Amino acid sequence: MSTVGVAVVGYGYWGPNLVRNLVEARAARLHWVCDSQPERLEAASRRYPGVGVTTDLQDILKDSRVDAVCLATPTNTHFELARVTLESGRHVLVEKPLCESSAQASQLVELAHSKKLVLMVDHTFIYTPAVRYIRDVIQSGRLGRLLYFDSTRVNLGLFQSDVNVLWDLAVHDLAILDFLLPDYRPVSVSATGISHFPGRPHNMAYLTCFYKENFVTHIHANWLAPVKLRRTLICGEKQMIVYDDLEPSDRVKIYDKGVEVADALDLRVNYRSGDCLAPKLPTGEALQAEIEHFLECIQQGSRPASDGESGLRCLKLIESANRSMGLHGQPVDVF
Amino acid sequence: MSTVGVAVVGYGYWGPNLVRNLVEARAARLHWVCDSQPERLEAASRRYPGVGVTTDLQDILKDSRVDAVCLATPTNTHFELARVTLESGRHVLVEKPLCESSAQASQLVELAHSKKLVLMVDHTFIYTPAVRYIRDVIQSGRLGRLLYFDSTRVNLGLFQSDVNVLWDLAVHDLAILDFLLPDYRPVSVSATGISHFPGRPHNMAYLTCFYKENFVTHIHANWLAPVKLRRTLICGEKQMIVYDDLEPSDRVKIYDKGVEVADALDLRVNYRSGDCLAPKLPTGEALQAEIEHFLECIQQGSRPASDGESGLRCLKLIESANRSMGLHGQPVDVF
Amino acid sequence: MSTVGVAVVGYGYWGPNLVRNLVEARAARLHWVCDSQPERLEAASRRYPGVGVTTDLQDILKDSRVDAVCLATPTNTHFELARVTLESGRHVLVEKPLCESSAQASQLVELAHSKKLVLMVDHTFIYTPAVRYIRDVIQSGRLGRLLYFDSTRVNLGLFQSDVNVLWDLAVHDLAILDFLLPDYRPVSVSATGISHFPGRPHNMAYLTCFYKENFVTHIHANWLAPVKLRRTLICGEKQMIVYDDLEPSDRVKIYDKGVEVADALDLRVNYRSGDCLAPKLPTGEALQAEIEHFLECIQQGSRPASDGESGLRCLKLIESANRSMGLHGQPVDVF
Amino acid sequence: MSTVGVAVVGYGYWGPNLVRNLVEARAARLHWVCDSQPERLEAASRRYPGVGVTTDLQDILKDSRVDAVCLATPTNTHFELARVTLESGRHVLVEKPLCESSAQASQLVELAHSKKLVLMVDHTFIYTPAVRYIRDVIQSGRLGRLLYFDSTRVNLGLFQSDVNVLWDLAVHDLAILDFLLPDYRPVSVSATGISHFPGRPHNMAYLTCFYKENFVTHIHANWLAPVKLRRTLICGEKQMIVYDDLEPSDRVKIYDKGVEVADALDLRVNYRSGDCLAPKLPTGEALQAEIEHFLECIQQGSRPASDGESGLRCLKLIESANRSMGLHGQPVDVF
Repeated sequence: MSTVGVAVVGYGYWGPNLVRNLVEARAARLHWVCDSQPERLEAASRRYPGVGVTTDLQDILKDSRVDAVCLATPTNTHFELARVTLESGRHVLVEKPLCESSAQASQLVELAHSKKLVLMVDHTFIYTPAVRYIRDVIQSGRLGRLLYFDSTRVNLGLFQSDVNVLWDLAVHDLAILDFLLPDYRPVSVSATGISHFPGRPHNMAYLTCFYKENFVTHIHANWLAPVKLRRTLICGEKQMIVYDDLEPSDRVKIYDKGVEVADALDLRVNYRSGDCLAPKLPTGEALQAEIEHFLECIQQGSRPASDGESGLRCLKLIESANRSMGLHGQPVDVF
Repeated sequence: MSTVGVAVVGYGYWGPNLVRNLVEARAARLHWVCDSQPERLEAASRRYPGVGVTTDLQDILKDSRVDAVCLATPTNTHFELARVTLESGRHVLVEKPLCESSAQASQLVELAHSKKLVLMVDHTFIYTPAVRYIRDVIQSGRLGRLLYFDSTRVNLGLFQSDVNVLWDLAVHDLAILDFLLPDYRPVSVSATGISHFPGRPHNMAYLTCFYKENFVTHIHANWLAPVKLRRTLICGEKQMIVYDDLEPSDRVKIYDKGVEVADALDLRVNYRSGDCLAPKLPTGEALQAEIEHFLECIQQGSRPASDGESGLRCLKLIESANRSMGLHGQPVDVF
Repeated sequence: MSTVGVAVVGYGYWGPNLVRNLVEARAARLHWVCDSQPERLEAASRRYPGVGVTTDLQDILKDSRVDAVCLATPTNTHFELARVTLESGRHVLVEKPLCESSAQASQLVELAHSKKLVLMVDHTFIYTPAVRYIRDVIQSGRLGRLLYFDSTRVNLGLFQSDVNVLWDLAVHDLAILDFLLPDYRPVSVSATGISHFPGRPHNMAYLTCFYKENFVTHIHANWLAPVKLRRTLICGEKQMIVYDDLEPSDRVKIYDKGVEVADALDLRVNYRSGDCLAPKLPTGEALQAEIEHFLECIQQGSRPASDGESGLRCLKLIESANRSMGLHGQPVDVF
Repeated sequence: MSTVGVAVVGYGYWGPNLVRNLVEARAARLHWVCDSQPERLEAASRRYPGVGVTTDLQDILKDSRVDAVCLATPTNTHFELARVTLESGRHVLVEKPLCESSAQASQLVELAHSKKLVLMVDHTFIYTPAVRYIRDVIQSGRLGRLLYFDSTRVNLGLFQSDVNVLWDLAVHDLAILDFLLPDYRPVSVSATGISHFPGRPHNMAYLTCFYKENFVTHIHANWLAPVKLRRTLICGEKQMIVYDDLEPSDRVKIYDKGVEVADALDLRVNYRSGDCLAPKLPTGEALQAEIEHFLECIQQGSRPASDGESGLRCLKLIESANRSMGLHGQPVDVF
């Protein structure tokens, strides 16, 4: 199978990680790094002398060796860059969030579909061994009836000036949810939040998603917490998972704990407490797995796990949440 | 100062702790233990042969040695037992929550006021060294402008059949808030939650309180979590507190971290990260401090830190939260 | 089966725990509490009005209702009190360490044997659910060939004036070892340690025990550590146990990890890394289980798990260790 | 100041880290990577196309652009490679341990001295922000009289076939000690340990160092532990440090705890317990700081913090420890 010619646009915070993994990937050949700042291109050149650098995307789109472009630029450039790149017939991997609105996202999804190109969103977490393992556990049915998903994603983070904390942090949890629970799609949301600095986007937010099933999800996203927390509870009637992404070992724990209605007459609810298992997870960088998946989808014409549609669903949820947040928690339907 | 003659009503889960501390308290003399179940009274007698036992509250109310009664009975009995006891001219300490409705609570508050009796609610946490210490830190102003209070109180807990998880768990956080932030009173709330078992009260809930200040509080209360968590973040612009009630040492940590608007023009928000201090807290059982406070208020005619009014304020919040929860998060004013 | 009449001598730090559990035990009836300090006896009387108090052991030994005596007095009184009590025909439970020398211990063991009385040492840890569970795991053979036992037992502790830290802390680990590994008996020891204050006993010590098997144990005991640690590693070729007595949950963890010689020719040693299991342990106070065991041994004439012989073996090890410590680690045989 | 021309010999586990940091260092220019395995050189070429590769050290020593050589080869090659390189007039940075014996180390130290070349050992830990911070605390005298240093460095590690666990793991602690406590030099050692596999080097070891001061150090090094631990206690009479290299935050904690002799007459020792401070440490990779230090020493003709003499002192300790270990803990003087 022929290697995929690739270019990376954006060499700021995340771009170097993409470049490093693309250079190592056997199925890819990196031809270009593009950035608007020459000193970044200089840094790229010093480390990877064989790769071309440019400040002009057109240099890349004119190069017939380029099959695919990875975008690691600011969110407000995603739509236009992805659109132009797809129009030119190249596959696209876009940093999350996919773009600034679900309307834009719909356009990109449609464009990729009509051109039969791969449009993939960089939802890195769904390529981690931990999330992969949890998906297998959920699919096995071991957890019993699913009860809730609760995630805390807080730290003292960089304030974004253009997007609020839901766009920046909660999008990770929404992508994980979208991947883990394909049969559960929120029908409405209630969100609360606050901006502590006038004229700035919300820096902390709480988001509840409601479902037609008797199931609920909640996400706490916060740029202003003294400690870094990345902890997710995924609970079923029979077993419960704690996924702590900051644990050096034992990142996933499965508790043989649950609840049961003991007596049909008095409806007494009892809980059951058993052993705890921390499975050994395979090692490996998520981004490497993600890039290999991207290349494979291109080569085989298959649909990525984090395709444009999943990006679009996440954006719709964030848009609904933002409306609810403006209304102090009033529930808003997910259209 | 004369000792206070005391009786305890209810010798189930919490009553034995009250009895143990009252027996040790120099300012008290325990005369009676009352419970409807004879085998519990037998257990009390075996351990404390000198204390009278009875299944009839009237035995206690007829005994002129009794100055005060501690109620550790189910919530739905609180109002009537407290009312009768106050009517008989005795001071009352009631297990939380104070009673089943704010209307009942108002009656008790008024009755205690007119009879000039102490009515105190057993909000144990506000008598812990940790919460006392945090109050001093807040009052010192070290935290700078207060930003938010966020508490997680979850575990695999006993399902209550009569009250939901807000009444059972969130009431602790509301009492702590009421104590720590006397100048901040919520004006509205948005709550979401779920009952996973038909016909049962909500077993998990998320509660956001809004204020007229640019400040927010959030509480996650949950009977169905695989791990026990008791963690509260109290964050200001200059310093931030993490209070983890399950930490054997270092229960309170003060982070010299914060945020500041760096530049008035571009409104850039920067964060600042410094040292972390875990103060040595005094040791001592909270319930002992609480009971000594109750006895002192009786002897000196002073107002308890957790008086009937604070209990009433908590109930009003829970009632508003329950209405919001029924409306999927729609905000509800606190009347 | 008739109840056992009991007395407790010593009502300082540990005595009240014995008394509380004896009062609750159905198989016992507590007749006396003895202590040299009248104010302690007063405290005992206030809490347990039905129990006799005395400063004179003879009052107890003259009382024919007394079948057994529990000693919770300073170590330097153990031998004489136990001797007199055994001579009088009563069963004895002695706080650890059994007495001040192995010579004394031998006398007590012989005396109990000739009088057919129960002599039991209060090695509380071997009655905990955690240690019981670990013994079952070891006996099952799951760990494979046993490799080592390593224990860290340190904290900022009360300096004892009469005994060093081996007598105070390491004795716990030696008792646990004696219980867990009945087939492994140390043949020699090497110990190092230090006294940081002239004229005071050693306040920190490191003890290595050698065996005729290719197995080793090590204990770090320390009164001068800033943090409290109670962690024991018990490792076999196939599986490894971490026992952390301070963990609120997951006190015992079994790692499916091990080592294997991959190739007989090059003797390469590979390691294997698998899941981790934290079993749910039964709840329950160790001292309660211990006291029930003591009463049962008296009633049935059986031998306690922590009998005088086990206490004697621990003392012999400590004596050898002390000699080695005086010789800066020079190995000393266990006679 | 002119840049330093550098070569790296050995591109296995550690070499790539050296190369990456040398490529980034402004004061260096990397000319060569040398390794005996061509496929490793291929990997180096792919990532750093501008750097020469060779399997022959002579290519490097003949190149007049090369001022310094970094050795990341197996321990048993260190002496000969370092000797030849120093003979050729190049500065040398050697992976730890410096070489296979103190006799060899003495030769290298002398050779570097006579040639006025920098000989530096890659004791990475002493270039970490944590160890630097601890040194400042110790030098400030805040800890009071120093009492002990205790380190646990265990994990399920790769068995080395040629050197035992003291050479592999304890050398880190010895280097840290050598750096932190320049005024304390061990006069004798007692070590115990075991090899669980016939014909293999010791895979676990306990090492006590004795001093002429009333101070003691202890190191537990172990390749066969189910959990990874990197925890060091450094305790003084007034304050105590816990350094846990695996803590993502709060890597260093200073406890305001200590002991004091309360009464000159009865020599009672009391402990004192106060606050705990976790300082914010600067970020930054230790290896980067180390390499900059190496380059600076070359440019300025100064002596490195981890010079050949420090490497020699560590080797002498290990050699004494190995003799003691063969004698089951018998103390051995450090010559």
